[in-house]
Amino acid sequence: MKNNKTEYSLRFLSEYLDAELIGDSQKIIKGIAPIDTANESQLSFIHNPKYIKYLKETKAGAVLLSKKHADSSTTNCIVVEDPYLAYARLTNLFVEKKIKPTISDKAVIGNNCNISKINVDISANVVIGDNVTIEENVTIKSSVTIGNNVTIKSGTLINSNTSIYDNVQVGSNCIIHSGVVLGADGFGFAKRKDGSWSKIHQLGSVCIGNDVEIGANTTIDCGALLDTIINDGVKLDNQIQIGHNVEIGKNTIMAGCSAVAGSTKIGANCAIGGFSVIAGHISICDNVMITGGSGVANTINEPGIYSSGASGVVPNSIWRKNVVRYKSLDQMFKRLKKLESQMEEFTTTDNKELENAS
Amino acid sequence: MKNNKTEYSLRFLSEYLDAELIGDSQKIIKGIAPIDTANESQLSFIHNPKYIKYLKETKAGAVLLSKKHADSSTTNCIVVEDPYLAYARLTNLFVEKKIKPTISDKAVIGNNCNISKINVDISANVVIGDNVTIEENVTIKSSVTIGNNVTIKSGTLINSNTSIYDNVQVGSNCIIHSGVVLGADGFGFAKRKDGSWSKIHQLGSVCIGNDVEIGANTTIDCGALLDTIINDGVKLDNQIQIGHNVEIGKNTIMAGCSAVAGSTKIGANCAIGGFSVIAGHISICDNVMITGGSGVANTINEPGIYSSGASGVVPNSIWRKNVVRYKSLDQMFKRLKKLESQMEEFTTTDNKELENAS
Amino acid sequence: MKNNKTEYSLRFLSEYLDAELIGDSQKIIKGIAPIDTANESQLSFIHNPKYIKYLKETKAGAVLLSKKHADSSTTNCIVVEDPYLAYARLTNLFVEKKIKPTISDKAVIGNNCNISKINVDISANVVIGDNVTIEENVTIKSSVTIGNNVTIKSGTLINSNTSIYDNVQVGSNCIIHSGVVLGADGFGFAKRKDGSWSKIHQLGSVCIGNDVEIGANTTIDCGALLDTIINDGVKLDNQIQIGHNVEIGKNTIMAGCSAVAGSTKIGANCAIGGFSVIAGHISICDNVMITGGSGVANTINEPGIYSSGASGVVPNSIWRKNVVRYKSLDQMFKRLKKLESQMEEFTTTDNKELENAS
Repeated sequence: MKNNKTEYSLRFLSEYLDAELIGDSQKIIKGIAPIDTANESQLSFIHNPKYIKYLKETKAGAVLLSKKHADSSTTNCIVVEDPYLAYARLTNLFVEKKIKPTISDKAVIGNNCNISKINVDISANVVIGDNVTIEENVTIKSSVTIGNNVTIKSGTLINSNTSIYDNVQVGSNCIIHSGVVLGADGFGFAKRKDGSWSKIHQLGSVCIGNDVEIGANTTIDCGALLDTIINDGVKLDNQIQIGHNVEIGKNTIMAGCSAVAGSTKIGANCAIGGFSVIAGHISICDNVMITGGSGVANTINEPGIYSSGASGVVPNSIWRKNVVRYKSLDQMFKRLKKLESQMEEFTTTDNKELENAS
Repeated sequence: MKNNKTEYSLRFLSEYLDAELIGDSQKIIKGIAPIDTANESQLSFIHNPKYIKYLKETKAGAVLLSKKHADSSTTNCIVVEDPYLAYARLTNLFVEKKIKPTISDKAVIGNNCNISKINVDISANVVIGDNVTIEENVTIKSSVTIGNNVTIKSGTLINSNTSIYDNVQVGSNCIIHSGVVLGADGFGFAKRKDGSWSKIHQLGSVCIGNDVEIGANTTIDCGALLDTIINDGVKLDNQIQIGHNVEIGKNTIMAGCSAVAGSTKIGANCAIGGFSVIAGHISICDNVMITGGSGVANTINEPGIYSSGASGVVPNSIWRKNVVRYKSLDQMFKRLKKLESQMEEFTTTDNKELENAS
Repeated sequence: MKNNKTEYSLRFLSEYLDAELIGDSQKIIKGIAPIDTANESQLSFIHNPKYIKYLKETKAGAVLLSKKHADSSTTNCIVVEDPYLAYARLTNLFVEKKIKPTISDKAVIGNNCNISKINVDISANVVIGDNVTIEENVTIKSSVTIGNNVTIKSGTLINSNTSIYDNVQVGSNCIIHSGVVLGADGFGFAKRKDGSWSKIHQLGSVCIGNDVEIGANTTIDCGALLDTIINDGVKLDNQIQIGHNVEIGKNTIMAGCSAVAGSTKIGANCAIGGFSVIAGHISICDNVMITGGSGVANTINEPGIYSSGASGVVPNSIWRKNVVRYKSLDQMFKRLKKLESQMEEFTTTDNKELENAS
């Protein structure tokens, strides 16, 4: 657990949220905790209805909740329209901040770089190439490698051991987690007659908008000729793979271990569940939700919730038989269809027989 | 292949295993090899029954085997209860050891750190934050980044280019492979009215027990409020993703490329096959085996072997038809059910007709 | 986008390709672009038939195309047998080259290393162990860690933050992207009676042939006793996991996020689609194509195209019902079979009745 020395009065917190406070405004809050484990110096929140039952017995010093639950509270409460969003905003007060930005003398910085004098923090063993622009309030943690001609805009945080290839552009207020690789070569080869592969050097780059978060060990390849584009507000979880020339629309969110193959375009405000794979050269329109573990093989033109796959475990002994049947599902369908037509014919014949007999 | 100068007499090896030796106790063994390729200075073992046939022709200098196979051996043998476990133990003798632990003058170590004087090995370009505790016999390879307030307990090995965020705790005798990221932010955002996302700063951390092994490029996120917990003896393969607030029970083993979404609890002594995905906010009890490539969508309360998915390839021409049928499997079921009731009705009707006709 | 100062006349480009030029041989080309966006100083190409329609309106300064499309071109054209392969070859002219190879004084190099004097480029914060051989024209970018007894052959490029464990061998003219881990321990443990796991130290290594490309954050484990082998000309995309003792045959290509479990042998000239998982201890013969998202559970002995899985999304409301049916697919099959035999019997009975009645 993080040890944080920060503390705030309930008055301060309710004013920060511009929200109604019911209870002791002098009460001091030192952290945030789940409602069933919070102690009297911690604040909690009610988002998921299944936690409402804890309202009567919680030891929390205060609870964020919506108006309809305020009467059920036995402790101090801050009444907000959206308790989950209010909780998100308050976490900002309890996160540790960098204290004294410095540029380490163990960082290696190339020629012709333009590094802001305002609050830039560059740790030891960062290696920065030539012609790089680093704007104000940027933090770069140790052992990050930044290639030539890269731009990192204001307020962005790049965690340790990340690799950024030449020519990549990263917008403002982004968070790039450790182990991320931006701008490695897209996967492109042309087959020679002898079966070996001729490399298609990837001449595009990666362009990342503002307010983008990229999870640990995620990889985003540079474009073949044009750029791979991640638009403003996109949130990518860990271990995601984005192929060359993909474009991801504004505020789209994608959970861990998903992959998007080359040249696919995903719209704005989409939500892609974890462990999903999206084929190359297709497009997904705005406002599409793909549930986790899905394989998207074709273009989606209508907003909505889509799914594929055969998830949901059963005992292995049953599953082994189902897998065998799945392999001949089309044959099964044909046998069903044949039965249907036999039944049809049979009913007709039989009726005729009956008619004849009558 | 590794070049190892180590060598042992069969007497030494049998004593190390506290096992019966049949044959030449002075025989020198310089390595371990599969039974079909081992030479006279190498030891082999019989674990998989399909290799028993090689016992008569092997050139191995000695073989580890169980009592029932001892008579079939034509070479020296060490008789043990569990040859595979004995083989595992012997590999410990043939692995290269660090020779002379040193703390590189090219390592960067923060303020108020507590670094043991006993056998700690820290390579060049390691960057360690403030208030870090490193116990005895710890090895940290090059370009590892360790944040503030981290504890690494005795005997643990951290390979190169690993990133450990602030406040993470790693137990004793763990092995962390290269490219691992421990404690990056869990994936949490609350939606604003305009469709953009408000970050939920992750205030918990990661707590890893003793004897845990974590494979290359695996990522374990810090908790939202409480910690993500990996208990003693857990073994995680490469490229696994563990979401925030997951807990994994003692001695559970998980193969490569699997993913566990947030807040899920996996019990002790489970075995999760590779490329499996486990949904968030569920629990899996102790002693569950999930076969590879499965998607676990719901809580599992009974020990046993579970599976899902439609793995097992068929020619593409057949598969394409099966996929189409799968998309309307429920309709297929309904058609089947209708046929059944028609058949039922028909049989009844027909019997009545027959009765009437007779 | 990359800013490249390179430019060539069409005469030079056609001679480089040994191809017929139709049009202005003095025309200067400064880059390559898609046919629908290329400007007059850029060259484009026609590979995918759906782009032929742009031939009449393209603003490209020149187009690579095959003889059959030459008449449709309204701009300069270079006529080649395989425009995609010719495009691949030309990208080589437009990629940025390293200018002045140097060995950084911030690189750490171990004892008894054999580092070529010819065009070797080693960046800051590279850490190289003892007894390492680096041949001519090798480039190693920053924060790469190379263990002891490693060999890197001529012309190979290793990008930043890559980890190469002891004893690994990398061939000539390979490209290893950032975050790759070569030679981490294979996943091997033997169970003790108390349920804990005894580590099987992995005594083999990784051997990589010539002309191999390995994508960002891909991991290739060392062998248990013998080596894991990647043969000449293999191309691996990002975030692929290769287990211990796998062997991948010449010129086989594997797309992103695929995984191959231990001891499996994949033949030459195979193409494995992205997000595929291949079980351990099986083999796949030469010239097999596996489509993306497949799970290969058994040995494949015949060349061809194979697939598995239930990809292809449908609306979630339909999918949820299909998933339920899939879980009892074998029961569904049995009900179908029963209906078939009822129908069979019924038809026979009915015919008898009819015969009797006639």
